[in-house]
Amino acid sequence: MTSKIAAANANEPYRIRDVEHLAVQVRSGDRRALAKALSLIESTRVQDRTDQHALLAALYPWSGNALRIGITGPPGAGKSTLIEALGLHATQQQHRVAVLATDPASTDMGGSILGDKLRMRELANHPDAFIRPSSNRGSDDVLSRRIRECIIACEAAGYTTIIVETVGAGQSDTSIADVVDMVVLVTLPHAGDDVQGIKRGVMEVADLIVVTKADLDPRATTTAVSHLKTVVNIFRSRFSDWHTHVLSVSSMRGEGIAELWSVCQQFFAPIRMPIIQQQRRIQRQRWLDSALKEELSAALLQNPALKELTAKLYAAVEEGTTLPPHAAAEIVHAFRSLPCSS
Amino acid sequence: MTSKIAAANANEPYRIRDVEHLAVQVRSGDRRALAKALSLIESTRVQDRTDQHALLAALYPWSGNALRIGITGPPGAGKSTLIEALGLHATQQQHRVAVLATDPASTDMGGSILGDKLRMRELANHPDAFIRPSSNRGSDDVLSRRIRECIIACEAAGYTTIIVETVGAGQSDTSIADVVDMVVLVTLPHAGDDVQGIKRGVMEVADLIVVTKADLDPRATTTAVSHLKTVVNIFRSRFSDWHTHVLSVSSMRGEGIAELWSVCQQFFAPIRMPIIQQQRRIQRQRWLDSALKEELSAALLQNPALKELTAKLYAAVEEGTTLPPHAAAEIVHAFRSLPCSS
Repeated sequence: MTSKIAAANANEPYRIRDVEHLAVQVRSGDRRALAKALSLIESTRVQDRTDQHALLAALYPWSGNALRIGITGPPGAGKSTLIEALGLHATQQQHRVAVLATDPASTDMGGSILGDKLRMRELANHPDAFIRPSSNRGSDDVLSRRIRECIIACEAAGYTTIIVETVGAGQSDTSIADVVDMVVLVTLPHAGDDVQGIKRGVMEVADLIVVTKADLDPRATTTAVSHLKTVVNIFRSRFSDWHTHVLSVSSMRGEGIAELWSVCQQFFAPIRMPIIQQQRRIQRQRWLDSALKEELSAALLQNPALKELTAKLYAAVEEGTTLPPHAAAEIVHAFRSLPCSS
Repeated sequence: MTSKIAAANANEPYRIRDVEHLAVQVRSGDRRALAKALSLIESTRVQDRTDQHALLAALYPWSGNALRIGITGPPGAGKSTLIEALGLHATQQQHRVAVLATDPASTDMGGSILGDKLRMRELANHPDAFIRPSSNRGSDDVLSRRIRECIIACEAAGYTTIIVETVGAGQSDTSIADVVDMVVLVTLPHAGDDVQGIKRGVMEVADLIVVTKADLDPRATTTAVSHLKTVVNIFRSRFSDWHTHVLSVSSMRGEGIAELWSVCQQFFAPIRMPIIQQQRRIQRQRWLDSALKEELSAALLQNPALKELTAKLYAAVEEGTTLPPHAAAEIVHAFRSLPCSS
């Protein structure tokens, strides 16, 4: 694959050499190189595509050895405080921790308006931790398209625990289960009111539910935990050998963090590795399915010769005057009838 | 569209004329013609594709005027008994009722082993009802691909209430929300044990939950209803103007059926029509998105020149040796490099 990319990019030989050098720096654990690599991976500029492919090809063989943990929940539930406490605890257990965080300024409107570095200051300054904020992580597309590639880069850089933070809103809640091994749902103790914000789809994929800010109202916390345990028992778990755990935590006082890490250790116990590896194989197959469809749709929809026809048929389908499968057949027929060069 | 299909099929002019005749018969309300049309629509033979398109093009303008109700739930929950009672009630309200049922013999193993005609004998013999069993309705693909087309045919035949039955297992639970207007989840009163079988994803899309067989254990039924009301209140509804209703029903005694129909009437109240029409527009857009991707994938994956490459890359992705986006790019590049005629 690399040689093809190099050949395709023969008029820009220096850039390819840059990317290979960048990959070497990332693998050596250079934090600034990792930050640069993630920026390249997250770029949506078409002209960066070749470099993105080359970089990922160089990093992929060094990936796959981390615990991939997704942390999701509504705005203001205390996700970043929890991540900081969990991350610091993990570093004490000889883990190197990378956090792919959601930038609160843009998506997590209900939360802090400070930047991630400020939100997780102690973790950000820790030599064994790396925090990457993203202003786009809230949107469905970016999460599913680029987050897997960011995880690969962090793993190639030697991080052994990857924490992916998402805001629990919309479709992205459930697609988090497509990119991480373990899904942690974070909620506030005032279950009666605040749990309203939880979408049922998130609960379906949660392997662990954490009630945060237990210090603020211990009684409400106890009620919330027992309430959630009841709700959780109504449903099937997503793994046959795992039931969804419910824990309360006070990140401020550091209470419950060791228990939280212990549940993570149980989830990633050696005996569960075949199950996690199998889940990753399925995630990769799904990734290829969606990448294939996306690549094909892009080739088709970006084709200027088809733009007018496609817009016309989409409008007709929305109106209800043309059947979707007919519109699809007509677009694909037009696509395949184009001269080969286009 | 019709003229193009006719032109493409110029060597088989009689078959096209047959399809047009069939469409006329379906629209006249001929039950045998509708059964034949549904068989053609459900055919997976590649050579039936042209006829399927022609038939649907002829029926589509006469569709869209029915209440589309999905009934889902675990095997043995009493879905077919409920459908019969609801269907008979609807015929009394001057509705013509079409049921797209799941054949219990193949997918609903926990339920009756009798055929659908026997399961819903009274409804099946009613002049204003039509029951279509399907042995494939349990599988995800067939549900999403053909059920929308079957609904169109039933509507063109003059049915004003379409009931789609699915077994609540797997992905199909949630995709039911992509094909009907209103989702009804059916469950047994023994909530403690039997509600275990409900997947959280189904509850997320349910607009109404019906506790069946209320006659068997009135006390358990009351508990189940209040329990489900609590659970339902925890989550958001899928429409801002609609909260998920919970009802108990005894199909045997006919108790609760009028209330069930009344909730359906509320759901389809004239004031809610803009909301339902908007949902249908979104469903049509999604249908085109998926039809387009499917049509493209089919054109690609069925291409004999690419078969070996695709298989090799899928295996490499599963193994973890090739990155999914790289494999996708390579397959699409090979596809677009093929001679135009292939």
